[in-house]
This record gives sequence, C-alpha cells and structure tokens, in this order.
Amino acid sequence: MIAAILSTGTELTRGELLNSNATWLAAELTLLDAKVTTILTVGDCEDRIAEAFQQLSLGHDVVVCTGGLGPTTDDLTAASLARAAGVGLETHEPSLLAIKNRLLAVGRSLTATNAKQADLPQGSIALPNTAGTAPGFSFRFNRATVYCLPGVPSEMKAMFEACVEPRLEKAGQVCIQVVIRTFGMPESAVNDALRSVEGKFGVTLGYRVHFPELQVKVLAMRNSTREASELAGAAANAVCEILGSRVVYARGNATLPAVLGKMLRERQLRFGCAESCTGGSVSALLTEEPGISDVFVGSVVAYSNEVKERLLGVPGQLIAEHGAVSAAVALSMAEGARRALGCDWSLAITGIAGPTGETPSKPVGTVHFGVSGPNLSRHHHRVFHGERTRVQRAAAFSGLNWLRCLLDDPTAEPV
Amino acid sequence: MIAAILSTGTELTRGELLNSNATWLAAELTLLDAKVTTILTVGDCEDRIAEAFQQLSLGHDVVVCTGGLGPTTDDLTAASLARAAGVGLETHEPSLLAIKNRLLAVGRSLTATNAKQADLPQGSIALPNTAGTAPGFSFRFNRATVYCLPGVPSEMKAMFEACVEPRLEKAGQVCIQVVIRTFGMPESAVNDALRSVEGKFGVTLGYRVHFPELQVKVLAMRNSTREASELAGAAANAVCEILGSRVVYARGNATLPAVLGKMLRERQLRFGCAESCTGGSVSALLTEEPGISDVFVGSVVAYSNEVKERLLGVPGQLIAEHGAVSAAVALSMAEGARRALGCDWSLAITGIAGPTGETPSKPVGTVHFGVSGPNLSRHHHRVFHGERTRVQRAAAFSGLNWLRCLLDDPTAEPV
Repeated sequence: MIAAILSTGTELTRGELLNSNATWLAAELTLLDAKVTTILTVGDCEDRIAEAFQQLSLGHDVVVCTGGLGPTTDDLTAASLARAAGVGLETHEPSLLAIKNRLLAVGRSLTATNAKQADLPQGSIALPNTAGTAPGFSFRFNRATVYCLPGVPSEMKAMFEACVEPRLEKAGQVCIQVVIRTFGMPESAVNDALRSVEGKFGVTLGYRVHFPELQVKVLAMRNSTREASELAGAAANAVCEILGSRVVYARGNATLPAVLGKMLRERQLRFGCAESCTGGSVSALLTEEPGISDVFVGSVVAYSNEVKERLLGVPGQLIAEHGAVSAAVALSMAEGARRALGCDWSLAITGIAGPTGETPSKPVGTVHFGVSGPNLSRHHHRVFHGERTRVQRAAAFSGLNWLRCLLDDPTAEPV
Repeated sequence: MIAAILSTGTELTRGELLNSNATWLAAELTLLDAKVTTILTVGDCEDRIAEAFQQLSLGHDVVVCTGGLGPTTDDLTAASLARAAGVGLETHEPSLLAIKNRLLAVGRSLTATNAKQADLPQGSIALPNTAGTAPGFSFRFNRATVYCLPGVPSEMKAMFEACVEPRLEKAGQVCIQVVIRTFGMPESAVNDALRSVEGKFGVTLGYRVHFPELQVKVLAMRNSTREASELAGAAANAVCEILGSRVVYARGNATLPAVLGKMLRERQLRFGCAESCTGGSVSALLTEEPGISDVFVGSVVAYSNEVKERLLGVPGQLIAEHGAVSAAVALSMAEGARRALGCDWSLAITGIAGPTGETPSKPVGTVHFGVSGPNLSRHHHRVFHGERTRVQRAAAFSGLNWLRCLLDDPTAEPV
C-alpha cells in the first residue's frame, strides 16, 4: 500500500507551526505497513490544494489530508477536492444536524459559516468527528482513497484511529499493536536495550516520545488475530522483562496517574501533595484522571516560603539553615502535607525550575523529592535538564513514578 | 519571490523525526518576504528526489533542499539533482581538501565514502560547511535557484544564514506581522466580527487556535518597514477595538499568566488560588511563567470536601446545604484562600469536570468562580462543554481572564 500525506495550512508554509500531524500520521501509516512516499504541505490556496489532490491521487493508494475543514474562509479542503475531481459540493444532512446540535448544546445557533462545514464533495462518505464540529470524509479519486481529517491534533488522531485505521488493515493480515509505557530511560538506551527483540520475535518496534514518557509500540502482523495477539504478547513480555518494572509503568492505554490511582484504590490509601517548583502540575496531572477523587484529596502548592510555613508547618529555621531546595525541607513538606491534608501518603517536590535562582551548589534543574507514608520517610534528589516547563514536567512524572515504585516496595530507588 | 522547501529522508516519511528543519526554513523565508507555497518531503529514493527537483524548479524562484548530503548510500541529493538536470557529477577539489583536513584533524583518513561528499552536480557553486564535513551547493535549474543544505539542523541553519540568506533578493516588500491574543469568543464569531478588516486596511488576517485561546494575526506588506508597521498597527488597533478588552488580553508574545503577573506586580499585589475541579491547573499555568513567584504565593488544591473545610475553613454546613459546586462555596473558598495563604487577591474554582458527577440542576461542565480582593467579592458561574481536560483548561483560563478584567474594573462581567 503506497500512501501520501497532504497537510494544508498557511500557518505551516509560513513556519508558524511544526507539522506534528504529518509525523504522527507517517508513523501510524508505517506501522500499518503502508509505504509513505510523500508528505506534501501547501498553504490555504484552492488552486494549490486542488493540484496537490490531483497529483497525489494518481500515484498513491491512500492519501490522508489534514486541515482546512473548519468554518473560516481559509478552510478550503472540501471545495478544492471537489474542484479537482470535477464534482459539486452537497450538504451532508446528518453532519449538519450534528453541528447544529453541538452548537445548540453550548447555547449558540447555526450560522452559514458553521453550516459550510457540512458541505462535502459529492460521493464522499462522512467520517464523524467525536471531538469537534467539522466532520471528516473519505472520497475515491483516481487511484486513491482520500481521507480528509481535521487539523486539530486531538480530533485528527481520534478520527484516524476510529475511521481510517480499520479501513487500512492489510488484506488477509491482522495487525495487533501493544503499547508499553515507560518513564525514566532515554530513548537511545531503550533502543539499544531492545535491539534483539525485532529479530527474535519477527515483530516491528516503534518508539514515540511523549515527553517525559516514551512509548514502545510492539506491532505483530500475522494471518489470524490469535496468532498476531500471541506474538505481540510474547514480544511485549520480553520488552517489559528487559526494561524492568521501575521503567515500565503500564501496558496499553493507562496513564501514570491512572496506574497510581488504581494502586492507591486497591490499598485503600488517600494521597496528597506539597508542591513548590512544580507549582501544581503534579496535582493537575492527577486530576486529569476521571475518578481520582476517591484517592486524591488535594495539594498545598506552597510556592512562597511563607506558605510552606503557614500551611505545611515547615519550620522557618529549617528553611533558613538548609534553603527551601533541600532534603530537610522536602521531607518536612511531605510530613506537613500528610498532617495538613489528613492523608496516608504524600509526595513533596521542591526545586529550581529556572531559568534563574541557581546557586553554586544547586544548579537550575535541581529538584528534591520527599515521600511520607505510614512508617516510611524517603528522600532523593536529581538534576533535570532543559527549560523551565520541561524541568517541571519531568519532575512531576519522576515524583509520581517513584511513588508508584514505593507503594510496591518501600526500599525502591528512583529510576 | 516564490519559494519551495524540499526535505529528504526516510526517517521523515516513516514519522521517526519531526520536520523541524522545514518549519524553521519556512519561517526564515517568510521573514525574507518569500512566499513559501510548498513543503515537500520525500524518502531516500533517487527517482522521487529527482522528480521533486524537476517539479519544484519549474514553479518556484527558490528551492531549498535539506538532507541527503552525507557519506552513506542513502545520501542521494547531488546524484538526484544531477540526474534531473541531465548533468554529471564532478569532484569539487577545495571541498575534498576540506573534508580530508577535517578527518585528519580527528585522526581519521579519507575514504571513498567520505570523498563522495565532494561530488557535486556540474555547474554547482559549493557552499562551505563550517560545522560539518558535507559541503552544500547551489545550482541553477529551470526557473529556480536550488540550494542544497545538510540535514543536521545546526549545520543547515549555519549554512542558510551564512550562504543562502545574503543571496536571496528582497522583493522590495516588507512584511510586518502583529499577533493579537484573545480568549472567550469562538473562532467563527471572531471571524465574522473581523470580516471587514482585510478589505478596509488591505492586510491579511490569520487565525490560530491554541485551545482555549485564539490568536489573530494581522499581516501587512508594504514597500518600507515604516509603511508596513503603520498599516499593521492601524489594522491591529481596529481588531482590538472590535473584539474589546475583555476578549483581547495581549498584543505580541505575552501569555495570559504573564499579563496577569505584570498587572499584579505593578499594583504590588500578592495572589493565590483555591482550586477544586481544576485540580491545580490554574497554579500550574501560572508557574510555567518564570518570575511569577514575586506575585503568586501558592494555592490550596482542595479536591476533597474535607480539605475545603480543613485548609480553607469552608463551613461543612455550607457544603451540605448548597453542595460543593455552588456560589456560596466558591465565595467561601476564595475568602478562605486569602486568609490561609495570606494574599491580597484570590481566585476560587469549583465545578464538575466530568464525565461523572452531574446532578439534574448541575450538568457536567458547570463551574462556579469566586474572586476575593480588598473590598471585593464576586461570583459567577458558567457551563463549559467538551471532555474533562477541556473543561478544566477552559475553566482555568476563564478564571484568570476574569481576574485580569476585575483588576482593571471591579464591576467587570466575565466574557
């Protein structure tokens, strides 16, 4: 199967936005055994988009297009494809109704601008958009099946997985993919460690960085679902064995907060945080997870030293003696959080996120972690690299992953 | 000047690497007043690269190609371009010598593999590589001047700046862009409201959604910097006027937390939060901003009702009577946060982020906001739509944006 990707958008040709959609699609299509020969990006110009559809549809079996499905005047995908193919546009009534209902639900009414999103090239098959208003569509043109998806990454990915992927699976071959979620080991080290797996099992491994996580994808293709599943499972077991449980936190779709939530729930423990340099991002990560409220009680974001003293009871003298970024203060914050929040376990994080604030002995990126639990009080520190938000995000994941390890083994060292 | 970018590399068409080179080049070329119509990525395949050169050189004045100049068998740029143009390859002796010397300096000797890097299409002009071994080159082909640069970003950028930029003629037009940052008005409504601006001023408007924000870009092209700046400024003023100050929170690069930080700093106010359904994401947003610690003291993430009582002093009876998601509790949380954190102003957010937890009178997405300040106590509520993390993010921005308006005008209604 020969595939091409067409990205539309003047924000791309003007260099205002990284084309991460094309990279994501290229990786997905490659995993589905398609050969992506071409990624073409053109601006919001009907002539050029029409010409691109014409060209790409001649030499490819599949063309996946992103962007240009929105309501504004620079959204031209449907009109361009219709023109290239010499057909008209027609309103897809179910999509129009869906757009209308979506607008009604937010107290707005349908305008001509919004209605335009339901106008599809004649002969299209509409693809529902579960996460936004614009429907996508597929359209047979020359040699190719053309799939037009929204440009918003979350909508595009959801639509690709729900509507395109099932249509692309190779005839007679079943493709099973197992995702293994890891944290704390650099991509090149993971790559080196897993070097033998592809050859040994006859599977394909893919790597995707979701900073600071790394996902390893094990892809097995066989003649039956059973064979492909067994093979993918065996290879995934080998991957987990090689990387170890401190690095691998989940198989499948579970996030780190979800895994932690499940562990706390099973143990009937209540958890809270004290955050300084991460500024609420540990709590924000946890509360992205639906249903976390039965184990997560809350946090004290003690950004100023005064709040560390007032709400967490950290002695002012301790801060004066050791500095706010220190083992002693991290432990005192963790213990203070347990008391103040009335929970069983707590995680405290205090550090220097940068770009300023470093001292000769404490470079930017220095982060101290404290964990307090029944009969447990642990500390460690690390130096993270990169800019402020990367330090914050890496520190938040690092703290939560260590907590995950400690719940299983109170002597666990951080990865 | 019409330009195209050609990126070569199977690591790009397999989705293993984000094409940040193309984005960087597109932004640079746009700044130089070139119109980038096309960004084309093809794998390491001589046929496809040759075809790409043939096609792009017909319709563009400038083609910038990256990648494929290295020593390995999949480095095919010079051979592909020579084939497309019907010329041979010839060794560029000064480049060969430079490669030899560079290898000698690191204790290696010249091999045939390395020597290949000095073979350029006949008629090329070599471009020196100050940061690596492979020289780049420029080559006249059809309508275009083709510039072939290395794929390693640092080498590519250095060569573009040193060798390509000075050769690109300015078309005598200067392009000035003003970014206007907005929150709270849907994209289609903004589009409708600004419909007359392009025609009236002779500028181009662009829109970019960074959920839940929307950026409006005003682009003006004129013969001089002064004319273009004045035009862009006048059109930007009109945009700000039309949308109003509750919707427009900044011009240029400032984030909403940065704008708020600046306002609090100027007023010498200290600020803190009480978060329930946003779970720390307001605090996380604020603390992404370097230097916010001089105005932001911290937050109480009161996810459980018990923490609302313990740390914020919300009366249990108030929660029992009105429910945790209510005007009374939002106001009590805001006042409690000011007391507990010892700050001048506070924002409290309590709501139902979903997907569960709704009641007949409180659908998923219902969020109550409380703001407490010296002689000020305000409340409002809204229903947000979409999935959990979108509700949380929209609520966080909405709260911060309202606070921004209230600092200027204590009677301001939320947008």
